[in-house]
Amino acid sequence: LQDAKKLVDLTSDHICAIKVNFHLIIPLSLSELSELNDFANERNLVSIADIKLNDIENTNRIATEYLWDTGFSGVIVNPFVGFEGGLDLVYQRAREIGKGVISLAYMSHPGANEGYGLKLMDGRLIFELMIDRANSWGSDGVILGTTRPDKIQIARKRLKPEIKIFSPGSGVQAGNARAALEAGADYIILGRSILSSRDPKAAVREASRALLS
Amino acid sequence: LQDAKKLVDLTSDHICAIKVNFHLIIPLSLSELSELNDFANERNLVSIADIKLNDIENTNRIATEYLWDTGFSGVIVNPFVGFEGGLDLVYQRAREIGKGVISLAYMSHPGANEGYGLKLMDGRLIFELMIDRANSWGSDGVILGTTRPDKIQIARKRLKPEIKIFSPGSGVQAGNARAALEAGADYIILGRSILSSRDPKAAVREASRALLS
Repeated sequence: LQDAKKLVDLTSDHICAIKVNFHLIIPLSLSELSELNDFANERNLVSIADIKLNDIENTNRIATEYLWDTGFSGVIVNPFVGFEGGLDLVYQRAREIGKGVISLAYMSHPGANEGYGLKLMDGRLIFELMIDRANSWGSDGVILGTTRPDKIQIARKRLKPEIKIFSPGSGVQAGNARAALEAGADYIILGRSILSSRDPKAAVREASRALLS
Repeated sequence: LQDAKKLVDLTSDHICAIKVNFHLIIPLSLSELSELNDFANERNLVSIADIKLNDIENTNRIATEYLWDTGFSGVIVNPFVGFEGGLDLVYQRAREIGKGVISLAYMSHPGANEGYGLKLMDGRLIFELMIDRANSWGSDGVILGTTRPDKIQIARKRLKPEIKIFSPGSGVQAGNARAALEAGADYIILGRSILSSRDPKAAVREASRALLS
């Protein structure tokens, strides 16, 4: 918790949100998560729970209530699990209480093509199905890896204009953040290139300077 | 934690494993999870973490290390995320240290057909692709809903014989546990029909009696 807070404090001038992954949510208690989210909110940062939620309705509902109670502003979900008895209540509840839902569209790692890259009988890639679901289910944003700027370009045309594109994978996974932005990404997600840096403040400043120049 | 331990204690004579879902893992601390797993292990119960893991390698690796450290015997993963840079290290590490990996094949809720039921260009259903991945990636078991006994039958023929079928969805979701067993399921997973019962011990005893008669 202290490490996470320190990192938020060091980088808060150069970022607009923090994304807290499953592997950090597991070890932290609910009160520690609240403390981290309060700390981020006080610095005007949005806080996103990246749990790639993909369970049945009842589990999703209880899990997201914990997340909202601890002050997260949004959650990342996997639309592969389906709407009916899957993510329906998550979208409904988030809309009711003003929280955000970001849905996966094409992840950044090499093996993402084994799922999002599959071609369906109707001619669509699953990635395109994911975009269509984001539109019809009412996602606030989608996840599209910086490693796939061509897909970001396609997605930007196909997505409703108000749906934002969040793009991870430009650090350790060697995606191209600038290409992603040029293709239509709205936000760049940086993880290990900041977290593992000896000087996170300089790392995030350099990254944002390079993208804005 | 105390509620969960009490439930384990009440039902341990009639079950062979406990499955701890994401929405219980979030609120419990690591030491509480250890305590719960120790409690189950002392009663000769296997303990499975149901997190439907579907993230990139680095997140998956750290998340599962926490799970193994707290004494879980197995984890449930979603093969949709892919192997390369996805689940590869999870399978590798689990094999090295003698832990189990159970992969999703067809979930129990209505919307599962929006994912597992999609037809691919090569003629396979995604459900069949999931079975093929369980075989080639080396899953110890697969999840197939009791709500779909026809799919269990197909899976049993297509799966390597040593891969077990775990079947949820026969309580609140109204799947037919007996039909699932007859179709080839090895284990029935009961959740809310036990958890929400006023007399969990009687509920689990009745359920097992009904299935064994």
